[in-house]
Amino acid sequence: MAVNLHIPSDDAVYPVAGIEIGVTEAGIRKADRRDLTVFRLSEGTSVAGVFTRNRFCAAPVLVCQEHLGGKQGIRVLVINTGNANAGTGEPGLKAANETCDALAGLLGLQSAQILPFSTGVILEPLPVDRIKAGLPGAIKNLAASNWVSAAHGIMTTDTLPKIHSQRIKLGDKTITITGISKGAGMIRPNMATMLSYLATDAGIAQSLMTQLARELADVSFNRITVDGDTSTNDSFIVMATGKSGLLVDSVAHPHYAALKAALAVAAIDLAQKIVRDAEGATKFMTIQVEQAKTVDEALLVAYAVAHSPLVKTAFFASDPNLGRILAAIGYAGITDLDVRGVKLWLGDVLVADKGERNPNYQEADGQRVMKEPEILVRIALGRGTVAQTVYTCDFSHEYVSINADYRS
Amino acid sequence: MAVNLHIPSDDAVYPVAGIEIGVTEAGIRKADRRDLTVFRLSEGTSVAGVFTRNRFCAAPVLVCQEHLGGKQGIRVLVINTGNANAGTGEPGLKAANETCDALAGLLGLQSAQILPFSTGVILEPLPVDRIKAGLPGAIKNLAASNWVSAAHGIMTTDTLPKIHSQRIKLGDKTITITGISKGAGMIRPNMATMLSYLATDAGIAQSLMTQLARELADVSFNRITVDGDTSTNDSFIVMATGKSGLLVDSVAHPHYAALKAALAVAAIDLAQKIVRDAEGATKFMTIQVEQAKTVDEALLVAYAVAHSPLVKTAFFASDPNLGRILAAIGYAGITDLDVRGVKLWLGDVLVADKGERNPNYQEADGQRVMKEPEILVRIALGRGTVAQTVYTCDFSHEYVSINADYRS
Repeated sequence: MAVNLHIPSDDAVYPVAGIEIGVTEAGIRKADRRDLTVFRLSEGTSVAGVFTRNRFCAAPVLVCQEHLGGKQGIRVLVINTGNANAGTGEPGLKAANETCDALAGLLGLQSAQILPFSTGVILEPLPVDRIKAGLPGAIKNLAASNWVSAAHGIMTTDTLPKIHSQRIKLGDKTITITGISKGAGMIRPNMATMLSYLATDAGIAQSLMTQLARELADVSFNRITVDGDTSTNDSFIVMATGKSGLLVDSVAHPHYAALKAALAVAAIDLAQKIVRDAEGATKFMTIQVEQAKTVDEALLVAYAVAHSPLVKTAFFASDPNLGRILAAIGYAGITDLDVRGVKLWLGDVLVADKGERNPNYQEADGQRVMKEPEILVRIALGRGTVAQTVYTCDFSHEYVSINADYRS
Repeated sequence: MAVNLHIPSDDAVYPVAGIEIGVTEAGIRKADRRDLTVFRLSEGTSVAGVFTRNRFCAAPVLVCQEHLGGKQGIRVLVINTGNANAGTGEPGLKAANETCDALAGLLGLQSAQILPFSTGVILEPLPVDRIKAGLPGAIKNLAASNWVSAAHGIMTTDTLPKIHSQRIKLGDKTITITGISKGAGMIRPNMATMLSYLATDAGIAQSLMTQLARELADVSFNRITVDGDTSTNDSFIVMATGKSGLLVDSVAHPHYAALKAALAVAAIDLAQKIVRDAEGATKFMTIQVEQAKTVDEALLVAYAVAHSPLVKTAFFASDPNLGRILAAIGYAGITDLDVRGVKLWLGDVLVADKGERNPNYQEADGQRVMKEPEILVRIALGRGTVAQTVYTCDFSHEYVSINADYRS
């Protein structure tokens, strides 16, 4: 079902110098499935993360935040599927810490240098013994070339792996950017969901990393929505090894903007790939809100449209049902919105102007756009100069089937 | 599909002294369909309304607000189905006013004494000539006993009429309360949706009416949600004719509280009936949030749960998928929520305690509750003393079919 989800060929997935990856089958929930992935980062790698704001956040998220706040450099990431270790209380925290302790022992590191991630069923105890038993196999398997394997290794209900890889030239240095992501709905039956790991061999000063990760998330993973449900485990990690020889040590560095832009391209692609593989998706929609007064009000409108079940089912049906989009704009929460300033386009077709149906609009034109698998919805509010973009998908029978029929 | 939607027998629908209703077939969109309803109110009837906050509100909503703000008493309500007169700009306002003018001429009233309502397709011009042509037939038909006919006359995609009627004794007076509502989703393919008319023969001073209507809406129509989409035409009208001989002239009146409580019972029943007849609904869910600090935060949590497509599909599947409810509580927006204070019940079954799975919880117990057509979800936040209740329904294949397959 995935919508235009491009998977690069193996030789177009570039290893990132300074990063090795090991993937193994630990039998965490099911046999014969790659379910345990270890990233080993070379010393001096800068690392930052952005995590779910769900108050029921998972135990590994709490441990990650604690370890990232520490003084020791992060050297290892460990990701298990099959169990989210969420809603598990104190025993869950203990299990996450045990995983870190075991890896630290095997690799001669401190436990605080390890970031643990879990994704899968929630409210069930983490089978930490199976994870510990699997770690030596993952370590034995460590190799720079394992990105594709890792993209498979972190999948749960995803139908396809999600990988982005690119090389750019910054001055006389060739910089590699490679990342992976997973997620197919915000929570698939008890699955706690979105993970993404983005790495570069550019060096980036640790002091810049937290802000950079937040800014990257704000144009990518914080701009996608499938069903509006925020999972308990969402994590986005940015890693910069410095092995290319380029070190960006301040935002004033001549290559900072270009490097950040390239990382943003990667983050947006990895985020979009989650929407493209969303549960039951048949259409990929870009909701662009323009002429807002503030970022907040642009996002209010974009998310009102992107979350409306009525808008999403209309896109599934390829039905240019304009009233539903206008209604969503109207209830989004801008209390002083003057609808006479509102314009709406489907693709290049102006369907509403001055808050009313464009007199020249023909339903056949709207229909033509709605039949495409990729649809741009542009909304101009006529209030200001701010624009924001959100990515989403349609809402199909398949979504209900996937989310209702599982377990029952 | 409607869930436990009780229709009173004709002899249990009590006319309200001072109110006559006429219903006719005006052929507004389809032939052979009751689509035009007129309420005539006796002189001195107090009237107040609560309307959609959608910025794309319909022309009749604007006219109603203007007329309710005027000095002349409201004497007539006129309701057409088949066309919402929304997104229609200046011509739409003109059409709504023309309807009022025509009725005023026929009944010897001022145009400002008439409230117009429209429901049906949006973004299409109101066929005002057909409405005007139908008015004499509706007037000819005026009778106190036409409440059931009116409940049919305002239906669009509703599968059943929605009526509430009761008699109560206040002091030595018998008071009648009768009302009708319509609505089946917030917007069914371009349908603009919820209307309700609630009348009593108690007298209520006009100065009390606006606040009373708001308070009634806040426990009923402002506490239901099907899909989170707020329509452009939502209107709730309260009418008090005074024909019973009882006049409540201040909130300190000895019968004010009892009368308000009886009106609230009626409003809640009429609101719940909309949810019971919601598009594709197979379950009726009451989401009760307790121990909140404020009304706002209780509603944040209640609506997060009620709007979550993952929660709603789980209820459709009778799947006690606790993680989804906890996740919705977690992302609802209470940033300082301590999850260790959270309890969750399905019906009488305590499923989560201290933010974790209740150790004594058996999935079979949750399953038993989930199979019922009426389900109470109770959430205690452990932060305060405020409670709020929201009513919603599940999310089925039928919902997608209804909203995707129409028009396409």
